[in-house]
Order: sequence, then C-alpha cells, then structure tokens
Amino acid sequence: MGMRIYPTVKDIQEKIDLLLIATPPPVAPAILLECAEKGIKAVVLSTAGFAEGDEQGKELERKVVAIAREHGIRIIGPNTQGLVDSEGRLLICSVTNSPPPMLGDSGIAYVSQTAFFYWDFTLKNPHLGVSKAVDLGNMCDVDHADMIDYLSVDPKIRVIALHIEGLDKGRKFQEITRKATLKKPVIALKTGRSPAGRRAISSHTGSLAGRDEIYNGSFRGTGVIRAIDMDELIDFTKTFACLPSLPTGNRVGIITISGGAGTLAVDACKELGLNLAELSETTIEMTKQVLPPWATARNPFDMFTSLKIDAHSTYSMALEAFSDDPNVDSIVVIGILTSILSEMSALNALQEYAESGIKKPTVVCGFRDEGALKQLAALETKGLPVYSSVRNAVKSLAAAYSRHQFLKESFQKKW
Amino acid sequence: MGMRIYPTVKDIQEKIDLLLIATPPPVAPAILLECAEKGIKAVVLSTAGFAEGDEQGKELERKVVAIAREHGIRIIGPNTQGLVDSEGRLLICSVTNSPPPMLGDSGIAYVSQTAFFYWDFTLKNPHLGVSKAVDLGNMCDVDHADMIDYLSVDPKIRVIALHIEGLDKGRKFQEITRKATLKKPVIALKTGRSPAGRRAISSHTGSLAGRDEIYNGSFRGTGVIRAIDMDELIDFTKTFACLPSLPTGNRVGIITISGGAGTLAVDACKELGLNLAELSETTIEMTKQVLPPWATARNPFDMFTSLKIDAHSTYSMALEAFSDDPNVDSIVVIGILTSILSEMSALNALQEYAESGIKKPTVVCGFRDEGALKQLAALETKGLPVYSSVRNAVKSLAAAYSRHQFLKESFQKKW
Repeated sequence: MGMRIYPTVKDIQEKIDLLLIATPPPVAPAILLECAEKGIKAVVLSTAGFAEGDEQGKELERKVVAIAREHGIRIIGPNTQGLVDSEGRLLICSVTNSPPPMLGDSGIAYVSQTAFFYWDFTLKNPHLGVSKAVDLGNMCDVDHADMIDYLSVDPKIRVIALHIEGLDKGRKFQEITRKATLKKPVIALKTGRSPAGRRAISSHTGSLAGRDEIYNGSFRGTGVIRAIDMDELIDFTKTFACLPSLPTGNRVGIITISGGAGTLAVDACKELGLNLAELSETTIEMTKQVLPPWATARNPFDMFTSLKIDAHSTYSMALEAFSDDPNVDSIVVIGILTSILSEMSALNALQEYAESGIKKPTVVCGFRDEGALKQLAALETKGLPVYSSVRNAVKSLAAAYSRHQFLKESFQKKW
Repeated sequence: MGMRIYPTVKDIQEKIDLLLIATPPPVAPAILLECAEKGIKAVVLSTAGFAEGDEQGKELERKVVAIAREHGIRIIGPNTQGLVDSEGRLLICSVTNSPPPMLGDSGIAYVSQTAFFYWDFTLKNPHLGVSKAVDLGNMCDVDHADMIDYLSVDPKIRVIALHIEGLDKGRKFQEITRKATLKKPVIALKTGRSPAGRRAISSHTGSLAGRDEIYNGSFRGTGVIRAIDMDELIDFTKTFACLPSLPTGNRVGIITISGGAGTLAVDACKELGLNLAELSETTIEMTKQVLPPWATARNPFDMFTSLKIDAHSTYSMALEAFSDDPNVDSIVVIGILTSILSEMSALNALQEYAESGIKKPTVVCGFRDEGALKQLAALETKGLPVYSSVRNAVKSLAAAYSRHQFLKESFQKKW
C-alpha cells in the first residue's frame, strides 16, 4: 500500500513521540522493552485481551505495567480505541471504518473507558466538535485523575465529561478532582451501579467497581456533577459548553407557547430545587399588553393567545423583559422550533436574542422536527442550548445552578 | 372567500352532527340555546377565556354547562384545540397554520388537556400516525373517563395516552379506567405534581389538581402506567403501539456493540425490576464461536470484537440465538444505527429479523445519526421500537413487562 514497514521499533530511525501498539497481547511486553531501549515514553496499547480477559491476559497486563514503571513509560490502555485531539490534529483511533470524529473547538473533553460515549455525543451533536477525547480502556496506567489533572489546566478545555467503570486510586482521584472542579465543570457518568453491573464491568475493562454510595460521596465532596444516564451526560456537557454564564440564583422565568408544557416546567423546577421567579411590575405590565383581558399575567408566561397575532414580537418582547427583570435569574423558553409553522416559530426571535448578547442563562425546548435540526444547532453554537424535552431543559438548568452554588460555597470557605 | 356564511345556527337547513363554536365567550350561551332548538347534540367549544380566566369567564362556563345539561348536549372544551380522527377523516383543529396532523392507523389515541403533547408526539414520530387525538381543554363536560370509555371499545385503538391536569370525578375515572386497562394499555402523564404546578394549571385550564399521591394511588389501583415526563409518555406510547407482544418474564438478554453501554443496560434493568437472563448452553456455544479465545461468553453479549469481522452475521446469529433461548424473555439490542459505518451497522440485520417474524419483544438503541432516521422509522413500523438512549429503551421494556404482570394478576384474581 505504498507505506514503509519496519520489522521492529528499533529499526525506526526517527524520534518517536507516541507509539500505538496493535499487536496480539503476548507480543506487547517485548515491544515495550524495545520502547525502553529507544527512549519512547508514551504508548497507546489498543489491543484487547488483557485484564478483562482470562488469567493469561491478567498476567500479561501485570507484566506490561511492570516494564512501563521500570522505564518511565506512560501507557493509555490496553483495550482502548485511542484518543483524538483537535488542537494537535491527532487521531489515534483503532477502529477502522469509524466515523470521522467530529473534532472542533467547543472546549469539550471526553474521558471514558469506552469510545461509545464520545461517539454518541458527536453523532448527536456534530456541530459541537469535541476538543479532546480519550478512551482509557483497562486503565493499567494513565487514569481518569491523570487526564483531569492535564485537562484542568488546558486553556482550550471548558468542560470535562467522564465515563467511569472503576477507580483504583480513590484518594488520587479526589485530590486532583477537588482542584479541577474549582477551575471547570466535571461531569461523571459512573456505571456499575448494581452488583450485576459491576460483574459486567469486570468482563469489559477488568475495572474494580466499588460500591455505588462511595462514588456518590466522592462526587459530592469534590464538586463533580453526576449524570445518571447517557442523555444526562450529553445534556449537561452541552449545557456547560454552550451557556455563556451560570445562573447566579434559582429564580426561573418560563416563557411558553403551551400552558400544559409550562406546568411540566414548573413541576420539574420544583422537583430539582429551582423556584419560580416573581416577575417585576415592569415585566407584568409588558406581558399584559399581549394577553387577552381575561388572562392573568404571571410566570409561566403563557403566550399561546399571541401566537397567531404576532409570535415573533411576543417572543422578543418576553425575552427582553425577562432578561431585564431583576427578579429573574435564568430563563426557560418552550417554543415552536419547527421547520414548518414559520409564522409562529421562535427560531428567528431566539437567533436575534442570541446575537444581541445573552444577558441571562437561557435554555430552550419545545416542538421540533427533523427539518429544524440545523437551525437548532446554530442556536447552540451561539449560547442557547436546546433540549429534547421540557424536563431535560430544566434538569440541565438545575445542573448549571448547582455548579454556581458549588463555586460560591467553595470560595466562601476559602476566604 | 367563496364560502357560504349563515348569520345564525338556525339559518342552516342541513342536519348538523357536530358544531364548532369559535366565537368570543359571551356569545356561547346563546349559540348553545340555538343548538338545543335545532337538536344539535355535539359541540366543540374552542374559545378560551372561560373557567381558566376571570370571574366572568367562570360564570359563563357555568351557564354553558347548565344549558348543555338541560338539553342533552355534549361539549368538548372550552379552551380546546379540537380533535382529530383518522378513521373518520375528521379534523377539528382551531389553530390555523397548524402542521398537518400526521394521522394514521398506528392504533394510538391521545387524550389531553392541551394539543402540545399530541403535536410533540407526531412531530417526533411522523411515521407512527396517531389514530385519534382530542384536546379536552377546560373539560366542562366530556372528560378523560368519557374518552377512555369510548376508546377502550374502539377496535382500531391499541393504546391510550393521557395528559391529565386535573380530574373532578375521581370515582368515575377509576371505574371506567379499571375496565379499560384490562383491554388495552393506558399511559398517563399527570402534571401539577407540585403546589406551584397546580397553581399554573388553574390559569391554564382551570382544573382542580388534587394532591399527587392520590393520583399515584389511583393509577396503581387501576393499572394505569404513569409517565413522569414527555419523553416517557412518548416512549411508552410507542412501545405499546410497536411491540408485537409483551414480555412474559423479566429475564432480559442484551446484545451490545459496547461493553460500556452494556453495563448501562444492566444497571437500568436492575434499577427497574428486570433481571439478566442466564443464557442457555446453546446460546453460550453459538456466541462463543465469534468471540476471541480469551473472552467469556455471557449476558450482556459484547460483540465488539466481531464488528470488523462480520457484523451482519453476528447481529443475526445473536438475535436468532436469543430468540430461541428459553431462558430469555425479551431482548435489548445496542447497535450501530447510523447512515455511515454501514459495514458495522445493525440496520440490515434488524430489518431481516423484523421481517422474519419477531418471536420475543425486542427494543433497540445505540449510535444514531440524522441520516438513519428513515431506516429507524421503518424498523418501528415493523415491530422494533428504537429509543434515544440505553436507559430509555430499558425503561420502556420495564413498562411493557409491568403491563404483563398487571394483566396476569388481574386475570388470576378473576378466576
């Protein structure tokens, strides 16, 4: 295929920064010894069949680790699909025929023990190009804490998303994470919540997954935001990557085209520790002007009756009024976000709102269809994250507010 | 506009089966008196500004109800966006410029107090054309129980999805629902779970939303499946509309392309009362053949190592083995469902599986992108519901199993 092949590592004359090993497991120790001889310090060991396999595999992994320790070699893996880095234009990914990883400068870093979560995010959010991602696999050497330590001081990274099957070094994780969360949000999806889940993990990456309550306590203590499923991991990651600022209070203003959906938002706020804002007199007066005489101006602001009169102006008026209202800390918009129904659509008003400078954290949800996906993506890159349901939007806002509270408490303690 | 206009109802010579009233509220009582005179028995009163508005509106609604009762007129509304019926090709929808409601013969009926939930379902699932939908609005006369009574004996309806803000007649609801749930699944999204949510409801439809625990007890007692958010309402509705049969046991077999995602499925199963199937010897032997020697054949069946060898055959083999395994009651497939990566895709294998006759309830999730939406829709119409995340797939399977359990217990009691 026109590429130069060397029989061994030692035959390569050039300096090697990083070596990808994709041989059968039994060959790995010998290759690592060659690395030591040649002074190679960084290895991605992609092959599977080590600690997650049989006894022979476990023994091989111990041997690999011993050689690496002795010669100061750092290893990512084994049993990994590699890593991607948009800044360095680096793509070490062992799955051939894989989708072109959608790299970008969103400031999102994914650290996981499988490539699944990173792929799932990029396929669902190709417009939010992930900056860095790594699959730690069996994690025989480089672990979550090492990556968090590195990413927390990387100025290009705004949010760190973790998928954790197990942590061997709990204290190290806590010490490093405690510092990192003061700098940027760290979100964790910990799997193996049940004993059966932990057994499944032992045959996936061989990780030792301890009791779930221990992780909960550790996350709470270090300010890590826990996601309980992939949807939450994706939504929370997007939230912190997109929102220009965090809510500084828990008073939520709701602008809705459906009273029924507005109630869903109220229920979700109450469930998640957020309150309804008491709208200021000015906001009440402004919203009154577009309501029929029999309706009460209140929060949620139900703008259904304005939809057929002048939807665009009503959305814009409400967004401005809520933004300027000192009683409102953050905004939930439940709008029409479809490619059809353009006269009643919120898309243009939201775009103008985003372009004029978002004053308060605002999350968006509502009716959507396939045709509007591109316009929704454009809103997200301008600071307005869009969610598939009312509850997911409010959950994400609550996660953002909990981050504000964590930072406030941490800095109060400090002074 | 070339349409004939009559000054009053009485001026219309033809027989009227159903009258839509879209006048300002104060005119409604006089029109109802004309209905009485002309013998019109069915009215959709779409206008807003009745019990959900001010004192005058409440008084008007009381007047309207009194006239209707006296003359045997049934009313849907007020404050409603109407109803749709695919069989009767009937579309009474007061929102002009609305999307063409995607009607069909999926057997799905939506009964709500806002059109939002029905619209949200159809926009997200245009391929699962809703058979019937009604927005009950303020529900001054026709209520959920009336609709459930009617839909439960409609042979075209397979599943009834409810959105409830409040129920005035609890005993009537329970009596009718208890019978209906023996015939077909009834799923309910009850909003107003918090006092603040209940206040929001009073300005939306004027409904009296009682304490949440009362609803929980009522749903449990009558076999209604409760959805806590729109995603669950949509997912559960889809599940019962698509699945050819219910799981008759709680032993789940998991086929996955990612060990990490397989663990998520295990966690979700355990959380929701489902168990992992102990695969039979035959299944173990079949799956062993495609695994590397170091790997253990087990449930979840992690087929990652087969992806690049022959993904299609592996998916097909696993689906067949799990289908024939007497220890497996239902199947979760976590696959590659994208328009790219076609060599590793599960789409063709799943399509063949669906076409050859699904032997056990099977739910699907995994990597997806925009490009594969049409193919996923085709799977759903063939009996394989597809979900946006692993947890949502397992939640829906658990809902289907809980329905099986409810039916079993109910019929045991009976004999």
